Amino acid sequence: MSDAAPPERFVLAVDVGGTKLAAALVDPGGRIVHYDRVATPNPAVPDAGGRDAERLWRTVRALLGKLVADAGDPPLAGVGVGCGGPMTWPAANVSPLNIPAWRAFPLRERLRALYPGLPVRIHNDAVCVAIGEHWRGAGRGRDNVLGMVVSTGVGGGLVLGGRLVNGASGNAGHIGHVVVDPDGPPCACGGRGCLEAVARGPALVAWARERGWRRENPHATGVDLAADARAAQPVAVAAMRRAGRALGVAIASATHLCDLDVVAVGGGLSQTGPLLFDPLAEAFRAHAGLEFARGVDIVAAELGQTAGLVGAAALVLAQDHYWSAG
Amino acid sequence: MSDAAPPERFVLAVDVGGTKLAAALVDPGGRIVHYDRVATPNPAVPDAGGRDAERLWRTVRALLGKLVADAGDPPLAGVGVGCGGPMTWPAANVSPLNIPAWRAFPLRERLRALYPGLPVRIHNDAVCVAIGEHWRGAGRGRDNVLGMVVSTGVGGGLVLGGRLVNGASGNAGHIGHVVVDPDGPPCACGGRGCLEAVARGPALVAWARERGWRRENPHATGVDLAADARAAQPVAVAAMRRAGRALGVAIASATHLCDLDVVAVGGGLSQTGPLLFDPLAEAFRAHAGLEFARGVDIVAAELGQTAGLVGAAALVLAQDHYWSAG
Repeated sequence: MSDAAPPERFVLAVDVGGTKLAAALVDPGGRIVHYDRVATPNPAVPDAGGRDAERLWRTVRALLGKLVADAGDPPLAGVGVGCGGPMTWPAANVSPLNIPAWRAFPLRERLRALYPGLPVRIHNDAVCVAIGEHWRGAGRGRDNVLGMVVSTGVGGGLVLGGRLVNGASGNAGHIGHVVVDPDGPPCACGGRGCLEAVARGPALVAWARERGWRRENPHATGVDLAADARAAQPVAVAAMRRAGRALGVAIASATHLCDLDVVAVGGGLSQTGPLLFDPLAEAFRAHAGLEFARGVDIVAAELGQTAGLVGAAALVLAQDHYWSAG
Repeated sequence: MSDAAPPERFVLAVDVGGTKLAAALVDPGGRIVHYDRVATPNPAVPDAGGRDAERLWRTVRALLGKLVADAGDPPLAGVGVGCGGPMTWPAANVSPLNIPAWRAFPLRERLRALYPGLPVRIHNDAVCVAIGEHWRGAGRGRDNVLGMVVSTGVGGGLVLGGRLVNGASGNAGHIGHVVVDPDGPPCACGGRGCLEAVARGPALVAWARERGWRRENPHATGVDLAADARAAQPVAVAAMRRAGRALGVAIASATHLCDLDVVAVGGGLSQTGPLLFDPLAEAFRAHAGLEFARGVDIVAAELGQTAGLVGAAALVLAQDHYWSAG
């Protein structure tokens, strides 16, 4: 294909988040050779005239320009981007839930104008994490992998038969909205009892607070909750157990449906270790009855914070596996 | 490929079930041009020496021989088979749950010896139904389709990006073991609260009996329950609602995970019509909150009893979509 990457060129990889913008030059082997990041200018109530949208775009552009200049202006093979959803796909008019300034912002179009002649490929940020884990992380060498990000939300991406699953609208991989309890708490999506409604950090914090956890500190977060769990604080431990069980049920459902080799669980909450993974494994065993399902490996993600950048680069560097759109 | 079907040759399609064995000659357009069937010799406690296994095999062989002879011995393009699971795949040593006489029976090997030089391809019977519905039924022309069979069990098959999903061991598509209620009834698989544990015909019958339905008749079945529901018998109507809700929850989970275009629901229970599909749609709407998911079409399967034969034929006739193994 005309836009395949010759081995000596780098891919410019970008991770657009509500807190930070990260960018990297990634070599064809998936190694990050230059890296930079800045805080995301992200007002909760953006200017209605679109000035905050343009300010964010200028920040992205400056970050990328500086990164490439600092690296000595190497030739590029393309641009790969992970961005919060929802977005139209593959056109990538993006409306990240956690970045109010961008609503139907034409990110792909802008990047194409900035890097004429190069392939520009954008996907959901959790999908990019899953791609990173499949390409160079906990799922490498396996053909059927679910990558998960358990953090402020619960996202994911699905690789089956060695290829990324996009689905009808580019939205496949929403493991966070698999139902784990039909009578469970309402979810921000409008549904009820979704995995995300139970296991996202803020939901666990709220659940723990109702049971008296850190009543004196209204600013305590999921990070504090995880720290308290590691210190054996009973309500915090119970919150991790609650999250682990919900994850185990959702993973059992996904494994029965998709016959997975590996589930790679990443995101902040996954760093809680056995406090999360032990109840997860217990719930999985209780619900995954079919013999084939019991063979799945449920493991911690390996790449950490850079998984999304590595996966975004793979949209260009390993297009046969991860990019089927135009 | 050397084993692709020239347009004038038929595929010999076989459907191996616990009650009947069906076979057909299928033309390259997916039309059944010859059909025959016999009762399955299926003792509940088969001869330990394997004589019942061989008797069943002789019955299969006789059915196929007669069908092909009756059709005037046309040249064949290959043999496609749907058979109850579990089985090793693609080797197809089959151990159908509902056919005790076959345990690790080498069905593919036997058929290859019977039809030397022809491709012989075997898959799960519910997978073949899903393939049939994607190729020539309710999912035709769409790329992301879940086909379901709701009957004595609940099975299915998954087509994503226009290709059959096999998964790590050929077992993808087990929608019947997606968890719809983590505290629900135990499932024959060893799990708990699976869709199948709630919505399979015998489970609905048992649930209705506990509520007084047809207490005088110990032999009443799911067919009777569906008939009584259509006649507005309240417990029977409630049983269909229970099944519909469980189906709606499982379909919401599958649609969020896989971003489906179409879900085709077949099998005996699906013939109950709105008594099943109305509560299904209601539960789906209550749990499918994400906008992309709400676009899925949930419809009755179109091909009826012949879907499995048409899908089995497609393993040979449309191998680019449905057969990725050796």
